Amino acid sequence: MDPELELIRRQAEHKLPPATWDFLSAGAGTESTIRDNQAAWQRWWLRPRVLRDMSRVDTRAEVLGGEVAAPILLAPVGRQRAFHPDGEEASAAAAAAADTVYCLATSATTDLHALAGRPGRRWLQLYVSEDRELTRQVVANAAAGGYERVVVTLDRPVEATRPRSRRHRTLGPLPDGAAVTTHLGDGSTREHRPGRWDRALTWSDLDWLAELGLPLTAKGILNGEDALRCLDHGVDSVIVSNHGGRQLDGAVPTAVALTEVIDAVDGRAPVLVDGGIRTGGQAFRALALGVRAVLIGRPYVWGLAADGERGVGRVLDTLIAELRETMTLSGCAAIADITAERVRDRGGACG
Amino acid sequence: MDPELELIRRQAEHKLPPATWDFLSAGAGTESTIRDNQAAWQRWWLRPRVLRDMSRVDTRAEVLGGEVAAPILLAPVGRQRAFHPDGEEASAAAAAAADTVYCLATSATTDLHALAGRPGRRWLQLYVSEDRELTRQVVANAAAGGYERVVVTLDRPVEATRPRSRRHRTLGPLPDGAAVTTHLGDGSTREHRPGRWDRALTWSDLDWLAELGLPLTAKGILNGEDALRCLDHGVDSVIVSNHGGRQLDGAVPTAVALTEVIDAVDGRAPVLVDGGIRTGGQAFRALALGVRAVLIGRPYVWGLAADGERGVGRVLDTLIAELRETMTLSGCAAIADITAERVRDRGGACG
Amino acid sequence: MDPELELIRRQAEHKLPPATWDFLSAGAGTESTIRDNQAAWQRWWLRPRVLRDMSRVDTRAEVLGGEVAAPILLAPVGRQRAFHPDGEEASAAAAAAADTVYCLATSATTDLHALAGRPGRRWLQLYVSEDRELTRQVVANAAAGGYERVVVTLDRPVEATRPRSRRHRTLGPLPDGAAVTTHLGDGSTREHRPGRWDRALTWSDLDWLAELGLPLTAKGILNGEDALRCLDHGVDSVIVSNHGGRQLDGAVPTAVALTEVIDAVDGRAPVLVDGGIRTGGQAFRALALGVRAVLIGRPYVWGLAADGERGVGRVLDTLIAELRETMTLSGCAAIADITAERVRDRGGACG
Amino acid sequence: MDPELELIRRQAEHKLPPATWDFLSAGAGTESTIRDNQAAWQRWWLRPRVLRDMSRVDTRAEVLGGEVAAPILLAPVGRQRAFHPDGEEASAAAAAAADTVYCLATSATTDLHALAGRPGRRWLQLYVSEDRELTRQVVANAAAGGYERVVVTLDRPVEATRPRSRRHRTLGPLPDGAAVTTHLGDGSTREHRPGRWDRALTWSDLDWLAELGLPLTAKGILNGEDALRCLDHGVDSVIVSNHGGRQLDGAVPTAVALTEVIDAVDGRAPVLVDGGIRTGGQAFRALALGVRAVLIGRPYVWGLAADGERGVGRVLDTLIAELRETMTLSGCAAIADITAERVRDRGGACG
Repeated sequence: MDPELELIRRQAEHKLPPATWDFLSAGAGTESTIRDNQAAWQRWWLRPRVLRDMSRVDTRAEVLGGEVAAPILLAPVGRQRAFHPDGEEASAAAAAAADTVYCLATSATTDLHALAGRPGRRWLQLYVSEDRELTRQVVANAAAGGYERVVVTLDRPVEATRPRSRRHRTLGPLPDGAAVTTHLGDGSTREHRPGRWDRALTWSDLDWLAELGLPLTAKGILNGEDALRCLDHGVDSVIVSNHGGRQLDGAVPTAVALTEVIDAVDGRAPVLVDGGIRTGGQAFRALALGVRAVLIGRPYVWGLAADGERGVGRVLDTLIAELRETMTLSGCAAIADITAERVRDRGGACG
Repeated sequence: MDPELELIRRQAEHKLPPATWDFLSAGAGTESTIRDNQAAWQRWWLRPRVLRDMSRVDTRAEVLGGEVAAPILLAPVGRQRAFHPDGEEASAAAAAAADTVYCLATSATTDLHALAGRPGRRWLQLYVSEDRELTRQVVANAAAGGYERVVVTLDRPVEATRPRSRRHRTLGPLPDGAAVTTHLGDGSTREHRPGRWDRALTWSDLDWLAELGLPLTAKGILNGEDALRCLDHGVDSVIVSNHGGRQLDGAVPTAVALTEVIDAVDGRAPVLVDGGIRTGGQAFRALALGVRAVLIGRPYVWGLAADGERGVGRVLDTLIAELRETMTLSGCAAIADITAERVRDRGGACG
Repeated sequence: MDPELELIRRQAEHKLPPATWDFLSAGAGTESTIRDNQAAWQRWWLRPRVLRDMSRVDTRAEVLGGEVAAPILLAPVGRQRAFHPDGEEASAAAAAAADTVYCLATSATTDLHALAGRPGRRWLQLYVSEDRELTRQVVANAAAGGYERVVVTLDRPVEATRPRSRRHRTLGPLPDGAAVTTHLGDGSTREHRPGRWDRALTWSDLDWLAELGLPLTAKGILNGEDALRCLDHGVDSVIVSNHGGRQLDGAVPTAVALTEVIDAVDGRAPVLVDGGIRTGGQAFRALALGVRAVLIGRPYVWGLAADGERGVGRVLDTLIAELRETMTLSGCAAIADITAERVRDRGGACG
Repeated sequence: MDPELELIRRQAEHKLPPATWDFLSAGAGTESTIRDNQAAWQRWWLRPRVLRDMSRVDTRAEVLGGEVAAPILLAPVGRQRAFHPDGEEASAAAAAAADTVYCLATSATTDLHALAGRPGRRWLQLYVSEDRELTRQVVANAAAGGYERVVVTLDRPVEATRPRSRRHRTLGPLPDGAAVTTHLGDGSTREHRPGRWDRALTWSDLDWLAELGLPLTAKGILNGEDALRCLDHGVDSVIVSNHGGRQLDGAVPTAVALTEVIDAVDGRAPVLVDGGIRTGGQAFRALALGVRAVLIGRPYVWGLAADGERGVGRVLDTLIAELRETMTLSGCAAIADITAERVRDRGGACG
């Protein structure tokens, strides 16, 4: 990654208590999925073309019903006040300033109402509670608060073992006033209880969710069959994700699963992806493979920890500038020019 | 592997005399097979599915005529009193407590009668003696002692050179009272004499063994032809194994040989596998490739050396918990759900 | 590379100010393309033949309308007075002495007129200015000054971010009297202004350039379609290049792009290549894959920095001697004998 | 390799002057061929079979008209008195004691007559002189001295640059009385003059050589066409070799070239191989791929340097014991049982 981003990463590591840093950095099991996610993007070489008039290069894109300055969105990450006192509010403000989408996590330390009325596009990531009425209220509140859609996470029936995080007894205290809560819509909140998230979810629950009134994106898809089946159950878009390597250790990297999902969906719905994206060139690869947008997670949280809203902004600026440069040097003046011909499989070539 | 298992490994290394540790750890020749065994499992990525109701996940499995809490069995390992005074009795007790199978080695330091009448499922691993009458008696004793089956090891016509172990003049003394013996069934014992194990064995000897009265499993199979031929000579199941890398240096890793054997056997008989399995995720991969169960060797001996029966139990608990978690996060509520669609070949992808 | 060349590289690093060394060594972004360029040549093994009478081995070759002592040319590299006071004049003199081609860069610190009338073959590398009249004059001056052809660089619509170089505030001062200038042909010069190089170039600009009176080579081609299209727009030869890894980070290595371009061009025009060539054996591989000649960049600048004209000569001598030796040991008495049968793809083999 | 062989290697390195050690160890150019030679054998996994009666395992083999205790021969290596005062006599004696073939080098420090009348099978490696009469006399002398055949080396039209050796000004002095000579058969000798070895050799020279009266083996073949053509010019067997990585840097590893040569020759003539063989398991792989025998070079010279004849014997004993063990553990009671089914390509699997 760019030395600027590496510097931000190191500033974040320096500022955060070890338990908090490890909570953020940890992956499931042997962390092989974190490593594979990052390496898999490098399996693709770029195949630039020349003489396409690069006097104007436009990174703007249409993503799920709205425009963004660039198809690089902020993925849901929980407990952001553990990383910076401004928490999710800072991240959302930076996303708005950069004209991209912020996706608030269910396990946020900022109530979803706190972002209502603020500028910028907002999505709400959701874990479905065993208490369906609670989930219904949350979605209704999100709709009322200007959230455009619900992103339901499907790869967390239980939380995986994450040894790097497990070795600390606690995740570190949250700042005063911060809590992981679920807002009920009547002014009251309930304590955030992952233990009540429903591990018995099946396809009919998707149908139910889709009828709650907000468009529905399924996150955590790693194969073509599941992607297609989602589309049959009320979902209008999918995010290829392995939870940043935090859930199933050894899961197929998202850059690899992506091609399978894209092939299966075959244009019926937009596909997005996250996992291991650390440069604008990797975002470019994902776009070339057919995604509508990418989401970044840890990198923007490094920015948050390092310097609050400004830090998140620096991370977004860096990645968008890299994407623009990659487009310019590849002969792609617009996002639509980033087609499959712009990448080439490295084959078995190592190194 | 999990840090918990790594910790146990280090405790074992710390407790054991170097000669004993090296006896356990050594592989044949350059030890390339040990390395390849472990790496080969990583050639498979996991391909999870979502929304399959993970409220109940059951690791129980039927393995060769009986149930186990999870299809992770204890492979035969010799001389266990060299690792802990309780030796094979501790390992067998831990297996019974975990509701899985213990396979006693021919070169055990515990008489096979000592386990008779104890709770738990027991198999006897056998090297065939040049003195067939002795072997006949051993099998008869095993049958009388509640051993369910004989596991005949076929990959040791001679013992391989193991440089890491060879550099020590001796394997280290056994504790008082421990001896590697063969029980004759009339109250007497004979000294354990590997020199008398028959290196002239051929297929007709399998027929003879199969008629001694206990079901017969062939261990040490690495190709499809041999697996099929075993089934024609009285064997009802095979274990794909390269002796944990202790016999033929450079042998094909078991994770690779496995697919060939599974294809050849084509459902005619159960196939099991050992070799390099250090995580529940690797056990999951083996199950996805079609085995009925996996066996672990060195890992449980680390537990034995570190803490006797309790240590073996900790190792089993760790691996079974990992298997359960991998199942949950892959959308497999039961062992039967772990099919070939749940893994994906990494191809030539490095790292 | 050869220890002699490695020694020259270290002498250069020792002599140059860090900012200058980093300017020379830097690649775009993560510098993955620099690494891949070098590694990609090693994907090919040599497949020698025997008994072909090696009493005379001739490295001479016809390259784009003239002979060279060996098909190893000097690629355009800017600002050479930053590396040695004699700058481009020293490099050009060494090329002439070695009887090969020198390609002057647009961003040279030596006026193109300064080389006019000197011995040796000369090409002019060109960036097209937004001010077409200026470009027209430069080409006219080059023609008048004995430059054989124009090499138009197409992979630099903008300059890429090069972090290793960026960390220095400046590139280091140029020696007294040196300046990066464009000669207008009327005795006056204009300041070198990369900011005015035209990023809006399209195919019709190639047509225009080709009609200015000098043969035209396109540099910076990495795919077959662009190569073919160049031939339809007045270009008579192409150089497969990714700017030595200085422009698009992650671009396909030239050794890989080469085979695609050679296949597409299918003999209609000569193809040359640069990128990562550090040994005569790598030049041999490129020739076997079908190029007419290779160009080297950084290696000869190491020679320039280390010892001026003499240093460049040592580098050329080393590489040509290596090429001759590789030919002799491969059974190729002449450049024409270096065919595709003389190399073999390593396949996925690592290491 | 086995720790025993590694120990011998270290003893040799300790005993020899650096210039002599580097002369022995050096490879051409970047030494990539030395590394690739060794790695290439590891591309093959062993695929053992069981229950084949291993009570007797016989390594004896018929190799080019005679029996050997095992198909592991001593390759020609020059200047052996530089490694030990007993030089070639010690190596030849060790070969005879081990009942295998010794191949004397043209650039030996022992006259070929000195071995005449000694026990053991002897071949003479030959470089053809520009003075054909000299070569004719040498072959006549070899025939008279009991040498069975001539092994003509074809991969050395010139000597390659070997940087590791080049850095020393000399190869180190030879012991008193040692000289690199060519015996003329009339009691006189001529100074050994590589400069007079004929680099203009072509196929007709093979015909001439083949008629001098001794059977002819061609050494240094790396492709199928050359192997076949040799057979049309009087050669009765070929050695796949790249001169131990000392000639063409980047040449295809012998383990890879081997399969091509074996396929082309298709049983018309015996094929042998050298290059990178450091274990009996690697010799086994070569035999499985179809060679009649392997030759070792540097390993036996380590033995020579470490301990003279006894040292060479230890190396041979180690490798033959490893071959026997590999055969036993693979179910191969005789050399003829080592067929292609006993190995399996690793595919792109790394590590």
